[in-house]
Amino acid sequence: MSLAQMGTELRCQCIKTESRFIHPRLMQIVDLIPSGPHCSNVEVIATLKSGQRVCLEPTAPWVIRIIKKILESSKPTPGSQL
Amino acid sequence: MSLAQMGTELRCQCIKTESRFIHPRLMQIVDLIPSGPHCSNVEVIATLKSGQRVCLEPTAPWVIRIIKKILESSKPTPGSQL
Repeated sequence: MSLAQMGTELRCQCIKTESRFIHPRLMQIVDLIPSGPHCSNVEVIATLKSGQRVCLEPTAPWVIRIIKKILESSKPTPGSQL
Repeated sequence: MSLAQMGTELRCQCIKTESRFIHPRLMQIVDLIPSGPHCSNVEVIATLKSGQRVCLEPTAPWVIRIIKKILESSKPTPGSQL
């Protein structure tokens, strides 16, 4: 399974992060990779609809906003907010 | 690329979501898949260190807390919070 393989890579995935805003509509998947023995950084990798994979800065306000927005767009139970 | 392939699947990935708490330390990757033409639900899929893939409920408070915690554990720039 390639997702698991990706996670078991014994190194960081991101060399640099994209600083320009990317519209969430262009994003197909957003991967959050917690820090761990393989990498001391939290990594956020967006797979765009074009197939391109882009590393995002997990502390950038627009990145946090996009993740929040994705989660908030799923709202069957009111009151569960970030 | 399998991540992109996963995103281009023309259907939802999750049939049911896990309601039991899973410790974030057991998570290798957390995938956020925004809703779209392929699926009207936002999907959150955790790949565990065991390799198991588990669908999480995006509106569950513990799921939101874990995502927040992963992002907050990356803090080079103070003040960027969820």
